[in-house]
Amino acid sequence: MAKQNISLSVIKRLPKYYRYLESINEKGIIRVSSKELSDITGLTASQIRQDLNHFGCFGQQGYGYNVKELIDELSKIIGVDKDYKLILIGYGNIGHALYQYQSFRELGYEFEAVFDKEAKALSDSNLKVRDVNELADFLEKNTIDIGIIATPKEAAQDVADVLCKGGVRGIWNFSPVDLKVSNGAVIESVHLDESLFTLTYFMNSPEDFIF
Amino acid sequence: MAKQNISLSVIKRLPKYYRYLESINEKGIIRVSSKELSDITGLTASQIRQDLNHFGCFGQQGYGYNVKELIDELSKIIGVDKDYKLILIGYGNIGHALYQYQSFRELGYEFEAVFDKEAKALSDSNLKVRDVNELADFLEKNTIDIGIIATPKEAAQDVADVLCKGGVRGIWNFSPVDLKVSNGAVIESVHLDESLFTLTYFMNSPEDFIF
Repeated sequence: MAKQNISLSVIKRLPKYYRYLESINEKGIIRVSSKELSDITGLTASQIRQDLNHFGCFGQQGYGYNVKELIDELSKIIGVDKDYKLILIGYGNIGHALYQYQSFRELGYEFEAVFDKEAKALSDSNLKVRDVNELADFLEKNTIDIGIIATPKEAAQDVADVLCKGGVRGIWNFSPVDLKVSNGAVIESVHLDESLFTLTYFMNSPEDFIF
Repeated sequence: MAKQNISLSVIKRLPKYYRYLESINEKGIIRVSSKELSDITGLTASQIRQDLNHFGCFGQQGYGYNVKELIDELSKIIGVDKDYKLILIGYGNIGHALYQYQSFRELGYEFEAVFDKEAKALSDSNLKVRDVNELADFLEKNTIDIGIIATPKEAAQDVADVLCKGGVRGIWNFSPVDLKVSNGAVIESVHLDESLFTLTYFMNSPEDFIF
């Protein structure tokens, strides 16, 4: 598979293709042309063919793409064909919502533990929340793929440091701060404040930019 | 203020500048140079000067930027100097977390009403959740700036249509689907699944792309 020199913008579109193909697949559609994918994604058909060619996914002339095959191929490329062990640090409102988000589980992302400063108060009969002070020790004894940070911003970098030292490979950050990672870990942040501000900007200046 | 022809990438950086300046301001720092902003944002000093010049924010040679003045200026540019009336549609886990997110309120984003299909079951003594069937009627009687969609994906486009018809100017979408808007509304989506997939891709292929 020729995956060299893929630009970030192509990579960022892969999950979108995956999502559209899943929704098509749920409707029982077996094959799809780049033209049809273009109609639902808003990208041009040639852009789509070029993107997918990058990853060795070639449609057949006059047939298009087999939906299930393309989903399988994209799953492998994105890495969602494997299972991932998650831990969550910060069991406030956002952390709680993420923990409950069922569709991650269905895709093979499994929560192994939840940590918070207020572990005792947040634990109940369904879930044992662990004290965040036990995080380093837990990571010594368990191999964890992804750490989700949903702590207040003041605590986020310290938690990220412990996660990186403990061999976590990916950090999904919901704290409103940019974090430094080490030890080969990668990070992806969801900044709710920035997203709301971007919306606010465009509401006030809808005609005011060029793409 | 010369705001014409601003590229999307500049606009997307504005909330980041705002966030960094707020954190500097909280520490009591009065002025900041583009060099210092560069150190904390990771952008080059010349990039920062260029970005801010676009919006008429000029630093002073040998002094830099006055932090509070720059925050005020950015507030006006982004539009967070005004107050916004929000409604939330979908009071599940994500909706609940967003409703509780205190920092939006502090910035002048105020929830006017919450809607859900299961209105009765979700209402309690602190919050009256309204039936989503009352949404159109509510929008006829109330002027709402922003509608937050946190419904299951099957319901999201219908809700977006009602919001646009009802004169809502901005839609903040948390449903895992791309929505069409009309009537001059603007949309900003937070796609959690795409973000997690992007993280997963980079965990599996960290060296595999060029920026």
